[in-house]
Amino acid sequence: MTIDLQPVKGTRDFYPEDMRVRQWLFARWREVARAFGFEEYDACVLEHEELYIRKAGDEITGQLYGFADKSQRRVALRPEMTPSLARMVLAKGASLPLPARWFAIPQCFRYENMQRGRKREHFQWNMDIIGLSSVAAEAELMAAQCAFLRACGLRLDGDKPDIVLKVSNRQVIQHFLEGLGIGADAFPAVCVVIDKRDKIGADGTTAELTKLGLSAEAAARIIAVLDISGLDAVADAVGKDNPGVIALTELMALCASSGIADVVRIDLSVIRGLSYYTGTVWEVFDASGSLPRAIAGGGRYDRLMELFGGTPVPMVGFGFGDVVITEILAERGLLPKEASERSVDDVVYPMSAKEFAVANRIALRLRAEGRSVVVDYSERRFKHVVKRAEDDGARRLFILGGNEVTAGVVTVRTMGAERSEEKLPLAQFGA
Amino acid sequence: MTIDLQPVKGTRDFYPEDMRVRQWLFARWREVARAFGFEEYDACVLEHEELYIRKAGDEITGQLYGFADKSQRRVALRPEMTPSLARMVLAKGASLPLPARWFAIPQCFRYENMQRGRKREHFQWNMDIIGLSSVAAEAELMAAQCAFLRACGLRLDGDKPDIVLKVSNRQVIQHFLEGLGIGADAFPAVCVVIDKRDKIGADGTTAELTKLGLSAEAAARIIAVLDISGLDAVADAVGKDNPGVIALTELMALCASSGIADVVRIDLSVIRGLSYYTGTVWEVFDASGSLPRAIAGGGRYDRLMELFGGTPVPMVGFGFGDVVITEILAERGLLPKEASERSVDDVVYPMSAKEFAVANRIALRLRAEGRSVVVDYSERRFKHVVKRAEDDGARRLFILGGNEVTAGVVTVRTMGAERSEEKLPLAQFGA
Repeated sequence: MTIDLQPVKGTRDFYPEDMRVRQWLFARWREVARAFGFEEYDACVLEHEELYIRKAGDEITGQLYGFADKSQRRVALRPEMTPSLARMVLAKGASLPLPARWFAIPQCFRYENMQRGRKREHFQWNMDIIGLSSVAAEAELMAAQCAFLRACGLRLDGDKPDIVLKVSNRQVIQHFLEGLGIGADAFPAVCVVIDKRDKIGADGTTAELTKLGLSAEAAARIIAVLDISGLDAVADAVGKDNPGVIALTELMALCASSGIADVVRIDLSVIRGLSYYTGTVWEVFDASGSLPRAIAGGGRYDRLMELFGGTPVPMVGFGFGDVVITEILAERGLLPKEASERSVDDVVYPMSAKEFAVANRIALRLRAEGRSVVVDYSERRFKHVVKRAEDDGARRLFILGGNEVTAGVVTVRTMGAERSEEKLPLAQFGA
Repeated sequence: MTIDLQPVKGTRDFYPEDMRVRQWLFARWREVARAFGFEEYDACVLEHEELYIRKAGDEITGQLYGFADKSQRRVALRPEMTPSLARMVLAKGASLPLPARWFAIPQCFRYENMQRGRKREHFQWNMDIIGLSSVAAEAELMAAQCAFLRACGLRLDGDKPDIVLKVSNRQVIQHFLEGLGIGADAFPAVCVVIDKRDKIGADGTTAELTKLGLSAEAAARIIAVLDISGLDAVADAVGKDNPGVIALTELMALCASSGIADVVRIDLSVIRGLSYYTGTVWEVFDASGSLPRAIAGGGRYDRLMELFGGTPVPMVGFGFGDVVITEILAERGLLPKEASERSVDDVVYPMSAKEFAVANRIALRLRAEGRSVVVDYSERRFKHVVKRAEDDGARRLFILGGNEVTAGVVTVRTMGAERSEEKLPLAQFGA
């Protein structure tokens, strides 16, 4: 047989050089989560399909990577982590001390007809605060995203930061709609429609909104409101007493105290595609505008627990994918050496199989000292071994031929620019 | 709707307390991999089903968690990592410098009718050496497994070690079979059958072997050979010139130089269920015998690349699951505090929303110093806040009421046995 050498369509292989970047990224995410006192959790990539079936028409439901298992149970490769989080929190019931701060780095899947370069899987850093209704939670989550972006070397302060967080609150639109006589029932579906207005165009948006019972005039007024940005302009348009405006005002003050005022902008164009968001919604963008896709997004979802059959618990969280941020950092030359270069401490080179045992004893001792050690058992010629040790980023090369063993020594070469060699007694390594 | 609160049957949720154990374990695995100079890689959990379809009747094929995607492509949740590794190596072709040392910690799936407590997924540490035909590779991999087990606090030296590695070589059996007139073609299927002899019994094994063309006498002789352990007894039974015996002799010498002689035993009862193994095979057991299931297993598979349509490359590797070792360590009380207890450095407690902004500024400064900080925005009563900070393992509690802010100070309580309090100026924290 001849197998297909490519991974499954839309999925990625991580060769060591790719994995170094991924692990560097995950380590930065975990460091920030730790700095904010978040605890890591995980659920299985395979979930009950019912968690993702929503009547509001979420795009995520249409792109579900779902199937029936051998017992005809409907399962899916998770498209997002939030429903699993809600399930786990619901299962704990009253025994879980709230507020809880949890994070995860799940791999998430979607099945769509492939657009150029779009993947069917990605990893996504999730941080969620469970049981806190104050917008202090949102400010904290945004501060965590910013702490990560700063740690990557991006500029977040001053007049021209590299990043912008566009922030809105669905309450703004919801109360504006109520003023137009549109009830709360239709609201999640309205959000799903207006979130995709860039894809379906103004006419398509109006058409879909009228299907949901809005008049053409109401549709036009909503679409116009979405163009408003800046807290003052928003307050002028929908009223200072709009609960969404009140929450956004409070949030802006807390963002300032968390050192992220320069990157946060109130912008009603942000809606988010998930129907379960109820309050604050936000997206993180490259401020240069060169990448139209959001780097990350978040939102408050105070009613998801109810939708799942539980008592209400205020929840807010964000998802931060690995693909876009890696592109941005690579483009700007911000991926550090540790993310791109292999390195080991020592290579031990037994010149023939006769010296394998002595080489093993040296390696055993070096590893006990905490060093990373490769024993080169290839029995290749010296220049090949040196070349390979250089490619592997080795700091030292231990050369061990028959003459060395007879003399009870090993030749230790320090690699790199200031190359040097010395002979050390084997006894020093217990060999 | 009311959702199913349990994860998909046979899969696990990892609550923070479970995740701490898992992350502790993964960190130990990564440390050992680093000590041996291995590079981490990964492939997607979703793979081409064809990678796992083998005519030898491997158990893994019968338990495949496979399905057709929306384009009717046959895909599977990987049951093991080796075929993905081989696919990736094959795709690189001659551009991959050999030998390569790669490791991964994939989640692997199988779908079987549930036995009590058996999971349908687990995580599995994999280390493989690609492109080295010497048994020095096997000795290195076994030494890595032992380095991990030692790091966990298990005893591997002396008369009564906690662990035993039972080692065989399929060449022993293959050449013995050739002596009985059984050719190499039937060999993989013979191995699959005799690996499951404990499940199907002596009669079942004989019956299946005769189906593969063996006489009842040949079947009986193979089964008898499997009871032999110890290098000398094996050599007596099959001859010192059996290529398997020669390889095992060489391997034992290298194991001694790697400091693992006390735990390695030659034992022909080890076969392994994967049909692609061609040489050394081994399993790691709890020496007390209280757990019948192997902790880990490995083997040499020098012909898998050929089976996949490539040129032959010698390969050897092991898989080490997370479930059995975690049980063993928990039973023996060897899971350390860091794996079981939550801890944060500081909790900042603003007594009301008026102090949230000052609290945020303090947290910002503390985090910049590398500390992990929770701001408790709950506005609950003091005793609840103290209790929660204790439960979270906090080292310090920063108390911030209206009086403190007016006085320009914050009360800092050191938690734990030697509790103390002091007032520090807010200016010290840039607040």
